[in-house]
Amino acid sequence: MAAGDRRMSEVRPAVINPDIAVERTAPSFQVEKLVSLLDGGAERTRIRRTVEHVIIADAVFSQENQYFLTQPEQYELAVKKAVHLRQKMEDLGWTDDGPEMWFAFRILGGNLAFAVHSGVFIPTITELGTDAQIAKWVPLARDYQIIGTYAQTELGHVGSSANHAVVLAQLYTQGKCHGMHAFIVQIRSLLDHSALPGVKIGDIGPKMGLEHVDNGYLMLQNIRIPKDNMLNRYSEITSDGRYIKKGSDRINYIAMVFTRVKIITEEMVTALSKACVIAIRYSVVRRQSKLKPGEMEAKILDYQTQQQKLLPQLATAFAFHFMASSLDTFCNQVKVQIKSKGDASSLPELHALSAGLKALISDACSAGVEACRRACGGHGYSKLSGLPSLYSRVVASCTYEGENTVLQLQTARFLIKCLNKIECGEPLPQSVSYLYEPITHDCSAKEKSDFLKPFLYIETYKHRAHRLIKDAGIKLQSLLQSGVEQHVAWNSTSVQLARAAVAHCHYIVVKNFVETLDGLKFEPEIQQVIKMLCDLYALTGILDNAGDFLHDGYLTGKQLDLMTACQLHLLSLVRKEAVSIADAFDYPDEQLNSAIGTYDGLAYQRLFEWAQKAPTNAKVNPAYEKYLKPRFRLAQSKL
Amino acid sequence: MAAGDRRMSEVRPAVINPDIAVERTAPSFQVEKLVSLLDGGAERTRIRRTVEHVIIADAVFSQENQYFLTQPEQYELAVKKAVHLRQKMEDLGWTDDGPEMWFAFRILGGNLAFAVHSGVFIPTITELGTDAQIAKWVPLARDYQIIGTYAQTELGHVGSSANHAVVLAQLYTQGKCHGMHAFIVQIRSLLDHSALPGVKIGDIGPKMGLEHVDNGYLMLQNIRIPKDNMLNRYSEITSDGRYIKKGSDRINYIAMVFTRVKIITEEMVTALSKACVIAIRYSVVRRQSKLKPGEMEAKILDYQTQQQKLLPQLATAFAFHFMASSLDTFCNQVKVQIKSKGDASSLPELHALSAGLKALISDACSAGVEACRRACGGHGYSKLSGLPSLYSRVVASCTYEGENTVLQLQTARFLIKCLNKIECGEPLPQSVSYLYEPITHDCSAKEKSDFLKPFLYIETYKHRAHRLIKDAGIKLQSLLQSGVEQHVAWNSTSVQLARAAVAHCHYIVVKNFVETLDGLKFEPEIQQVIKMLCDLYALTGILDNAGDFLHDGYLTGKQLDLMTACQLHLLSLVRKEAVSIADAFDYPDEQLNSAIGTYDGLAYQRLFEWAQKAPTNAKVNPAYEKYLKPRFRLAQSKL
Repeated sequence: MAAGDRRMSEVRPAVINPDIAVERTAPSFQVEKLVSLLDGGAERTRIRRTVEHVIIADAVFSQENQYFLTQPEQYELAVKKAVHLRQKMEDLGWTDDGPEMWFAFRILGGNLAFAVHSGVFIPTITELGTDAQIAKWVPLARDYQIIGTYAQTELGHVGSSANHAVVLAQLYTQGKCHGMHAFIVQIRSLLDHSALPGVKIGDIGPKMGLEHVDNGYLMLQNIRIPKDNMLNRYSEITSDGRYIKKGSDRINYIAMVFTRVKIITEEMVTALSKACVIAIRYSVVRRQSKLKPGEMEAKILDYQTQQQKLLPQLATAFAFHFMASSLDTFCNQVKVQIKSKGDASSLPELHALSAGLKALISDACSAGVEACRRACGGHGYSKLSGLPSLYSRVVASCTYEGENTVLQLQTARFLIKCLNKIECGEPLPQSVSYLYEPITHDCSAKEKSDFLKPFLYIETYKHRAHRLIKDAGIKLQSLLQSGVEQHVAWNSTSVQLARAAVAHCHYIVVKNFVETLDGLKFEPEIQQVIKMLCDLYALTGILDNAGDFLHDGYLTGKQLDLMTACQLHLLSLVRKEAVSIADAFDYPDEQLNSAIGTYDGLAYQRLFEWAQKAPTNAKVNPAYEKYLKPRFRLAQSKL
Repeated sequence: MAAGDRRMSEVRPAVINPDIAVERTAPSFQVEKLVSLLDGGAERTRIRRTVEHVIIADAVFSQENQYFLTQPEQYELAVKKAVHLRQKMEDLGWTDDGPEMWFAFRILGGNLAFAVHSGVFIPTITELGTDAQIAKWVPLARDYQIIGTYAQTELGHVGSSANHAVVLAQLYTQGKCHGMHAFIVQIRSLLDHSALPGVKIGDIGPKMGLEHVDNGYLMLQNIRIPKDNMLNRYSEITSDGRYIKKGSDRINYIAMVFTRVKIITEEMVTALSKACVIAIRYSVVRRQSKLKPGEMEAKILDYQTQQQKLLPQLATAFAFHFMASSLDTFCNQVKVQIKSKGDASSLPELHALSAGLKALISDACSAGVEACRRACGGHGYSKLSGLPSLYSRVVASCTYEGENTVLQLQTARFLIKCLNKIECGEPLPQSVSYLYEPITHDCSAKEKSDFLKPFLYIETYKHRAHRLIKDAGIKLQSLLQSGVEQHVAWNSTSVQLARAAVAHCHYIVVKNFVETLDGLKFEPEIQQVIKMLCDLYALTGILDNAGDFLHDGYLTGKQLDLMTACQLHLLSLVRKEAVSIADAFDYPDEQLNSAIGTYDGLAYQRLFEWAQKAPTNAKVNPAYEKYLKPRFRLAQSKL
């Protein structure tokens, strides 16, 4: 059994499309090793597969016919699945913080109700609550005896399920405002689910996607809550009404930061990698037009334009996968520092990084999923492809948990502060230490192969970030010096500041990809394939933003021509391994839920089969009897 | 009554949000004049408003609660509306080719069934049929006594309504293939709507959007049709089976070209202008964060980043509106040439232009609508904003009627042919005559104001198009000369060829915008506002593609810095007039159907009101009783 054949030998599809089978015959690497790398080790792969097996074997979790459900049906099923998973977990002895539950959530993420409850309400209590508060609320919440939501001054998050909310509100005591704090507020009766007095609540109505989740509006008027419902790990009100701070102000942001990091993996990177798998498999079974007269029609993945659409997305999925993993590690380090030593000094860097990366990654994953969807032509418009729901879901992440432009500007504010620190001779955090270095000039590349040297493209990205941050800083400074007010100067520079933040994060992602690569030196086969993807990611990003690199002559037009040739060549190399690389994400068909993206490549058969099950084919729409039949009969006599 | 107050004085909303009212107090131009310009004259404005009035007054056409309907309900209503419009038209004496019907289709476009029937089936017969065929089929089709569709070898277009199809198929006679021809094929019984023998037909199932349209699959096996059902204006089969050509082969493409031109206005530009109106109005009533400490929260349109997202889209909507109008004129000229003189010599140019522009405009309108949607934050994710359905609808146009990359490469093929003609000393069509000129060098701009000279930016776009076309041509040529086979050489150059085609079309759009501007010399007020939009469109396009212009040093980094300053200044100017400019699209609220984009600016009130009408608020989802109630009761005893 070849390593790449895992699905084949396990699931043994009776028939496999020869056009896809041939793609798997001679990969240059063992697919199973790449699977392990992506999972973070063979042991985690084993656990993930066990969890998948449990989920796939359980009919309640089936996604069959999901694309045919109405919104209320989707919501009902999502609640059923969430409650069922809880039962399953208890039966199987999976713990709340164990890897099984983590995988189960990742696998079922798109199909479970209560995302805000599990992903925001509970973590907020865990991060901001005292041990006693955690002990009181979290078990109830985990058992769905209460359903919690998260309420700020924006529509969203509340809906029809919740009976409690973490409300972020200004804390006033003894006539003084102490800023935003988190409070647990009961909003509905636990007996009959009616809204409590002073609470106006409802669903916000139909949305672009996320139909299985209920989002709502909430208005609170003259609500009293027990003092104990203020989450007070880091601050409290004494019984005589005094306010006591037990930690940094900044600590309030930490729950938000952790949520942001979590959704990068669960919502963004997963969506992009699924879309890549679907589109790449489809593109080797879909044939269209003859490349060469007299031959068969060509696989569309053999068209250079199709490679250009899809393969950089595949490389991007790897780039973000590794970035999310490093960010998660950093996040846990900061968590430990804070919890064990009360040291929150790394929080500004983590906040800036997570904000900027959340924006960069959600933008790129949304664009990438949509590129994959469109690359499947008309079939990408069919919900049965799985692609429309991936898009409508991932694109929401550009808006929630911090709108992307707002986040970019938060990162920019951190970067400008760093520039000021340099002037004062203060030390900088590691991720921005390059701002201390002198700005580099003129890329040294002379021939195509130079562009395959990671230090060279890291330098190139670093240069761009450095220049854009510096230029934005100079503009800001000169506006201030000419007497423009601070807020006007900031606003007048904001387009450039946002771009500088993006460039910084882009550099961080490339650098991290190369670091991952360096860590693979004992796995030459895998290192080689990752190197190819890393090169492709880095070069595509430079070519897509060519203006930034040409602007000050760091790169020349001639160098870009060489780089273009190099990137096109990389496309042809990645093309050969594309199906095996996509296989390494190891999504079972049941999880992809795509008629055109199954492992066996039987796209057309499955599309035809699924379409026939569509409710629109089960009965004639009433419009026929009501409006059309009499008219058609008139034509009968005339034709 | 001020010109900008038309809606106010006609509709007299009882309340208007003062934040939006103040935006309309002192426009630099008469809004009504801009309305006329967009409509193509005051008389057409009058007709449009009459049609709108009729439609709005008729309850059958109401869009109220549309976002709450299921897919089958949307389809049923769309059939009802289509049939009702036919009745209305007869009652009011509107003719099939008159401006009233044109406007009625444009206004109701998103809500009528049978788009393919009206937009493709009938026009194909009209273009490719003989007078006798037109007289036989078109009246039946217009009266919905038959419903026709269009069938090629791809899934789509057929669905549950159609009983006839125009099938594009290879014509064989006397053992010889004569290529693709169009045939009318009956596919369902006119009596009971059952599929005829040899016909397999059904709906393709759920899609990303266009729920009111049924798209289907069709398989034909051993179907015989009468010889008269071949559309034979340009070719026929004699009674003894001989094939006679009565016109150019290329003529078969003409129906496709006409459809393409029509959808640019009806599907793409309309979607973008609606999205702009919604997002701009929302952005002056939505306030978020304080720009200046101590002041009120700022209107989000006062943030530079928001201006950068929205205002170039507004300029783009104008650019494409004028482009579509010129293309339509060109199209009609070619039509007359062909029908009256049998002269199809302009068809290749029209085909190349319409293909490339369809791709450019559908890509940009999709990106623009999505940018507007995201710029409305979480509210842009609500269907009640009207924006999600605009996106899912417009993005389909990137795929249907010729997938965009395929179309770009068709345009590129034409451009490469033109290069070859130059070598042979043959004359070139007008739109590509610049390829004859020597390639220009080094933009002459020295200061900011230079970038507001239209001849300067036209030259800049021309240079880029010329260079990219030439470079692609050189690469292709050198591959061929090195012995690479034609099809391999083409494929290896296709990414660059597609980019060259885009650059050519971008130049055409800018040039056309300036020509429109020149035509307004007797309307200085309007010319001034259009000039501002033209400058903004042109400069944004250069900055967004900076690499292309820096590549060979045509522009320098310093010039781009000046241009950036110039573009940011333009944003602040357009900002001041943005609401009035958006008003000039003159969409009644009933047509926008957006809770956040109404003329009166009462976004929050309407959002709240509409959300309460959502079916999700009318009754408790069964999930509560089934899965949650018993759990919630457990918590009651513990809290």
